[in-house]
Formats: sequence, structure tokens, C-alpha cells
Amino acid sequence: MAKDKKMVEAITARDVDFAKWYTDIVKKAGLAEYSGIKGCVILLPHGYAIWEQIQKELDLRLKATGHENVYFPMFIPESLLQKEKDHVEGFAPEVAMVTHGGSEQLAERLCLRPTSEVLFCEYFANAIQSHRDLPKKFNQWANIVRWEKTTRPFLRTTEFLWQEGHTAHATAEEAMEHTLAILHLYADFCEDFLALPVLRGLKTDKEKFAGARQTFTIESLMHDGQALQTGTTHNFGDGFARAFGIQYTNKENKLEYVHQTSWGLSTRLIGAVIMTHGDDNGLVLPPKIAPIQVAIIPVQQHKEGVLDTANALKARLDADFRVKIDDRDYSPGWKFAEYEMRGVPIRLEIGPKDIEAGQCVLVRRDNREKTIVPLENLEQAVATALEELQKELYEAALRNREERTDKAASVEELKAKLDARPGFIEAAWCGSLDCEDAVKEQATATSRLIPLNQEKPAEKCFVCGGAAECMVVWGRAY
Amino acid sequence: MAKDKKMVEAITARDVDFAKWYTDIVKKAGLAEYSGIKGCVILLPHGYAIWEQIQKELDLRLKATGHENVYFPMFIPESLLQKEKDHVEGFAPEVAMVTHGGSEQLAERLCLRPTSEVLFCEYFANAIQSHRDLPKKFNQWANIVRWEKTTRPFLRTTEFLWQEGHTAHATAEEAMEHTLAILHLYADFCEDFLALPVLRGLKTDKEKFAGARQTFTIESLMHDGQALQTGTTHNFGDGFARAFGIQYTNKENKLEYVHQTSWGLSTRLIGAVIMTHGDDNGLVLPPKIAPIQVAIIPVQQHKEGVLDTANALKARLDADFRVKIDDRDYSPGWKFAEYEMRGVPIRLEIGPKDIEAGQCVLVRRDNREKTIVPLENLEQAVATALEELQKELYEAALRNREERTDKAASVEELKAKLDARPGFIEAAWCGSLDCEDAVKEQATATSRLIPLNQEKPAEKCFVCGGAAECMVVWGRAY
Repeated sequence: MAKDKKMVEAITARDVDFAKWYTDIVKKAGLAEYSGIKGCVILLPHGYAIWEQIQKELDLRLKATGHENVYFPMFIPESLLQKEKDHVEGFAPEVAMVTHGGSEQLAERLCLRPTSEVLFCEYFANAIQSHRDLPKKFNQWANIVRWEKTTRPFLRTTEFLWQEGHTAHATAEEAMEHTLAILHLYADFCEDFLALPVLRGLKTDKEKFAGARQTFTIESLMHDGQALQTGTTHNFGDGFARAFGIQYTNKENKLEYVHQTSWGLSTRLIGAVIMTHGDDNGLVLPPKIAPIQVAIIPVQQHKEGVLDTANALKARLDADFRVKIDDRDYSPGWKFAEYEMRGVPIRLEIGPKDIEAGQCVLVRRDNREKTIVPLENLEQAVATALEELQKELYEAALRNREERTDKAASVEELKAKLDARPGFIEAAWCGSLDCEDAVKEQATATSRLIPLNQEKPAEKCFVCGGAAECMVVWGRAY
Repeated sequence: MAKDKKMVEAITARDVDFAKWYTDIVKKAGLAEYSGIKGCVILLPHGYAIWEQIQKELDLRLKATGHENVYFPMFIPESLLQKEKDHVEGFAPEVAMVTHGGSEQLAERLCLRPTSEVLFCEYFANAIQSHRDLPKKFNQWANIVRWEKTTRPFLRTTEFLWQEGHTAHATAEEAMEHTLAILHLYADFCEDFLALPVLRGLKTDKEKFAGARQTFTIESLMHDGQALQTGTTHNFGDGFARAFGIQYTNKENKLEYVHQTSWGLSTRLIGAVIMTHGDDNGLVLPPKIAPIQVAIIPVQQHKEGVLDTANALKARLDADFRVKIDDRDYSPGWKFAEYEMRGVPIRLEIGPKDIEAGQCVLVRRDNREKTIVPLENLEQAVATALEELQKELYEAALRNREERTDKAASVEELKAKLDARPGFIEAAWCGSLDCEDAVKEQATATSRLIPLNQEKPAEKCFVCGGAAECMVVWGRAY
């Protein structure tokens, strides 16, 4: 018992210091470790296994919608990055440069990709000739480098892993449709799979991606009420196509520019999962992404029949679930704490008395409720518990967001509300950059998104009192 | 038919110019494309899909043997790379350096990983304390940068993709066992899955990995008789552990150094597959790695019932095979040539006459043999054809290697034989670097490997005539 206590006490309480609680979980749950390189982390087995679950499911969904995986170089010649004006202005400040290769100085410096639009554009300019070559729907899984000033594991690191989609279409309409289709694919993935409720909407011009006509975003709210930009999709129109000369001959044999999109989800998703579902006992993983869904902990494992029964249960469950049995020489209590810390959705305890009674104890990670399960019903009980856990994690996160969603009629009100209880605040906006800047300055809040399909609001702009263009969701973000 | 011809004629014949034939296939089969960055290629959908098949199977095999995936940063501080003397001497000449991040000059230059031993060592030094922490068996899938002077798609590129395993063990024996276990895992994978026969053996000291005690290798012979180092595994003993201070307390509470291994397989495997199995019609893929195993080509597809039948066949085969149906508006002949170029193992042709007769035509990619298959036997016929194709590709490659394996009693004989017909030449060697250098100089051949489990040969060293230590396989390598 002493060991259990030590393990649990080692985490800062979530309500005492959210930031420290977060980094405690990252380390104690074995997700990641700081490396010797500033701003770079090591993804440890448990953290990387969660990423593999994300990759597997997202990859399936992208392939099912006709995307093909490719791999482009991570180097971008400096001159190539400069070809689209807005793009280079946005990214130049955070680009890392390679100047030497094999002890010789390079004739031209090479940027490490902060994103790969220009490489795909250069390729498209050669590969696309005719309308028959369209659409091109590419995706790549890659590492990305952005020289960030302040970093935090998963949320913002100098090097991180992501997938980036790059597509080219014949018409502006098709590109726009695809940008939205991926936005919904991302949102559905986050909601169904990661149990993360997200808002879907448009970024303001100030917050959009460098070089994009429009950026769409999914935004989620962490347990502490801070917002997280969880994923974005960009519609480039023909802006990059004109800068790179990406043209095709249409059915009437006329030259046209293509219309492009790009979009990405990254290891940041793991940070979102931690900050949305975790609690004072550690990580809580939605069953669908949990590398281990069921941990079987034998009790009094040295007694005859205990390990055999535990192994037999594992064999039964292996067909449908990701199961681990832990027969290491540690106390059951120590193991309970360890699997709670790692967020394993269900633990099964089985000891001599349980075996005699033909039952085991099922404990859910989220509410720590114990249920006695007759062994003959085990598969069904596990399936039901996992389903309910997945659903209830989503509902709890949605409740938190709803309780933290409010409205404001002035910047002062917005600030007061965010100071009292961080969350999403809806307010009408005139569309001017000046008003948006004023919100940032006076309330240290940023526009998170413009909700989709809205009507022009009756309210006046909450900053200047002028005619409002749209409702905007504001918040303080990671 | 004109189009077919054009497509096939566009490849250089294999026996006319092997190097050109190779790059023709790389391009025409849609595997890779040169990028604007010297020595870097773009992996296109078909090439990347082959890599995904390799990853999937190899990852399963590594996980089944207890390895865990992780991801370490791609940056190595220059001072860290210098910690193991032999290692840095070997890699410094081909390291790319990052000197600027976000427009500021870095205080210390960062190397882009040419391999990641030092990063894992730094981590192990902190993470390993007790014998209970051992063994550590890590693997990562990552991109690697080596500033190469001459490059060729897949075989040697400035940036490439690979997996690298890094393990730490309690004893020297265990590390040695693991180095050999992975060598055999690699060899079995190449033989079973890629249909590549490989020789297994030890590298000479001259050819071993920088910093290793021993390097083991699998070597394969390409169709033209040139050798290819296909994968390597390294036993480091406690060399890195001493340089990095990686110690654990054993069961008697004494401090001991760990013993380490590392090993890797890369996208080079795709080059090996092309050069081993390809022919004058393009790529030939072993069924187990083929992203598409069966291409269904409807003939007279606009006639009633043809596409319906083709789709019904696909639905039947989808359960067991990776199947694609091509109903694009191109001639069947054009499609036949395209799928041959891409190496798809089996093509099924189905037209109105076939449907009437209740049959289809099955064509094997390797020998282009056509078989009439009654539709009711289709699953079985496809399964058998794929199995036989996989087996026969291996046998053909093995035959080529055996026909090109010979012995030599002098360097002159070795040179004459290699000049006449490139291949593997076995010759007894005294173990001296001088003799090894002489072979390189006089015959432009290198030692490929020292076969495992051999007895000391009766022959004298084929260079100096002194007492021989072992038989060595020599050749000219990519």
C-alpha cells in the first residue's frame, strides 16, 4: 500500500496546478520525456502506441475517401519557400535552416519543412497536365520542425509528428467542398474516436493559415476551460497554383489553374486527450484509442489456479479486445495504481475467492466503479463497459464545454467572464481587424472560430458597437 | 495497341543497360520521382504503398518479439555525436548540420540524425537503473539523413526512411544472441515476404558499423550479379555504455555496464525487390508485398453485364486478397501493360464471351501465362497462383545467385571471374586488412560477408598465401 500511495501522491492535483498536473501525467504515464534538445521530446512506448492507434484509424478514414499516401523530402530550398509571398511571411520566423552537408557549405540553404505546401506545389506543376489528372488527393505522415519559443509536450514542440493532406481540384467549388468534407471527417474522428467534442467553424483572416483563402478549424475545450485548436483545413483557391504555375487543360482544351486544399492533424491530439479526460489519478483513455483496453491483474497470483484462470480469461478476450495480463512481481495495489495512471479503460481483478465464486471484479477507469461479473458473461460485460465508458467520456467533456460556454455583450464582460471561469464566449463581431486586436489587447482573448451556417446576428459588434457581420466564439487558447 | 507498345518500349531492356532499366522502372511504375533537392526523391503512391506493406509485416514481427515503438528527435547536438570516438569518425563526413533556427544562429550546431545510437544511449543512461529495467527493446520508424555523393532512388538517397532498433541487455551473451536473433528475423522476412534469398554472415572489421564490436549482414544478389547489403545488425558490447555511462545494479546490487545492439532495414528493400524480380515489362512484385495483388480488367466493359460481373468477382475476392478493378476509359491492352509495369502479380480479364462461358482469364505477371478459370473455382485459382508466384520468384532469384556463385584461388582469378560474370566469389582469407585492401585495389571487389558457423578453411589466403582464418564471400556491391 505504501507504494500505491507514493505513486498517486506523485501527481499534482488537477485543480491545484493544471499545467503541472499535465506534465506530471505526461511523465508518470510514460507518454513522453524531455530530450536534451530544446523543445523536443521523446515519444515513449505508451505515448507512441496511442499515436499508432490514431494513425491507424485516421489512415483508414483518409484512404476510404480516396486519398493516397506519399512521402516528400523534408528539405525545402530557401528560394522555393519564398515563391508564395504570404506563406513565406507566415513561416519564415520559425524555420530551421540546414547550411552544411557532409562538411561542405551548401550553395543554397535548406529549410526543414514547417509544412509542405511548396513541395507538393512544385510536384503538382509537373505532374498535372490534363483534367484527367485531377483530382490529386495526397496525404503524408511526417515529422515537422517549427522553431517555437515556448514549448510543451504534445501541444507545441520544435519537432512533432503529423499527417498533412494536399489536394488539387479542377474547380473552386470542388476545392471548397473538399476543405469542408475534411473538416467534418476530422471532427467526426475526434468525436467518435477520441471522445473529444469539437466546434466546427471558420478562422478569421487574422488567424488563418499563411497563404490560405480560408482556414477552417475544429476547436475543443480542455478541462480547465482553455481552448485548443485541434485541427485545421485550408482552402487555397488558385493562389498557390498561380504562384507555382499549376495548370491543366480542361475538356474544352483550355488552360485552367487548379484549386488546392491542405489540412493536418498532429500529435497535439494526445495533449487534447490528456487535458480533456485525465483526472487526479492520471490519464484516462477513451477505449477506442487505448493501446491496452483491458488490464487483467491477478490477485494472490502465486496461489494455484490464479494465473491459469487469468490467462484463460485473456485468451477469451483477445479475440475482441486489446488485453494485457500483468503477472510481474509487484503487489496488486501497485499495479492498480499503475494502470490507472496509464489510463487503461478497464481493469479486471481475479483472485482465489473470485475463482471459487466463478466471477471477477471489473473496474472502470473513469468512475472507478467496481462490478462483480460472472465469468460466463465476461465478454459481454467488457464490451458494454467499454462502450459506456467511451460514450460517457464524450458526454462529460461536452457537459464541461456547455457549462463553460457563455455570451458577452462587451469586451469588459468577456474579460470578466473569462477571468472568473475560462471557456468559450460567443459575441457578435463587425469583421474588422481593429476590433479583433482590441479583444486581444483588452481581454487577452482570441477569436477561436466563426461557427458555420449562421445568419447575420441582430446584435451589434461587442467591441465597436457597429453593425455585426457574424457571431464569433472567443477564448483563451493553448 | 499503339499505346501499349509505346508504354512497353519506353523501358530500356534489362540486359542492354541495367542502371537505366532500373530508373525507368522507378519512374514508369510510379514508385518515385526525383525532387528538386539533390539526392532526395519523392515516394509516390505506388512506392509508398509497397513501403507500407513492408512496415506492416516487419512491425508485427518486431512487436511479436517484444519490441516497443518509440520516436526520438531527429536532432543530435554536435557534442553528443562526438561522445563515441569511432562512431563520430564514421558518420561525421556525411552529416547535415542545422545552424539557424527561427532566424537566430544556434549556440550549438545540430546534426540531422544519420542514425540514432547516441540519442538512445543518452536516454538509456537516465532510464536504466536496475536489472529490472532490462532488457530495453526499442524500435523506431524514422527518416534519416546522410549526405551522399552519388545517389540512386531507394538504394542510396540523402534522406531515406527506415526502422532502427536499439536494445540494451544485462549481459554480453544476451546482446550477442539478440544481434543474431534479429539477423535471422531480417533474413526470414526477406526470404518469406520479399522472396529475396539472402546470405547471412559477419562483416569484416573494415566493413563494420562505426562503433560496433561486430556487424552482421544479410546480402542479396541482384539480377545483374551485383551484391546489395540488404540489412545489418550490430553488437556494441559495452562500448557505447562506457562512453555514455549506462549502468545498472545487478541482483547482487553491483553496478554493471549494459550491452547494446542496433539494427535497421530501410526503403532500400524496395530497390532490392526491383533489381531482383523485375523484367523487361517492368516491376514484378512478390504477392505478399504487392499493394494490389489482383487487377480485374473488364473487356468490352460497355457491354451489358460486364462491369456487374467484374464487380461481383471483386466482391468475392475482397475477403482474402487486395483487389482492384479498373473500369477507366482506356483500352484493355493499355491497362494490361500498365498493371504489368506496376508489377501486379495477377490480372483477371473478363469479357462478354467469358461471362457466357462462366469463366475468366487469369494471367500471372512473372511468366505471363494465361489460364482459363471457371468462375466457381476463382478463389482457389487465385490463391494457388499467388502462392506459386511467391515461391517461384524466390526460386528464380536463388537460381540466379547459385549460378553466379563461384570460388577463386587468387585475386587475378577473382577479378577475371567478376569481370566475366559478376556474382559472389568465395575465397579463403587470412584476416588482414592489407589483403582486404589489396582485393579492393586489384579487383575492385569488397568483402561482402564471412559466412556463419564455418570451420577454419584448409585453403591458404587467396591474396598473400598465408594461413587462412575463414572463407569470405566477395563481390561488387551497389
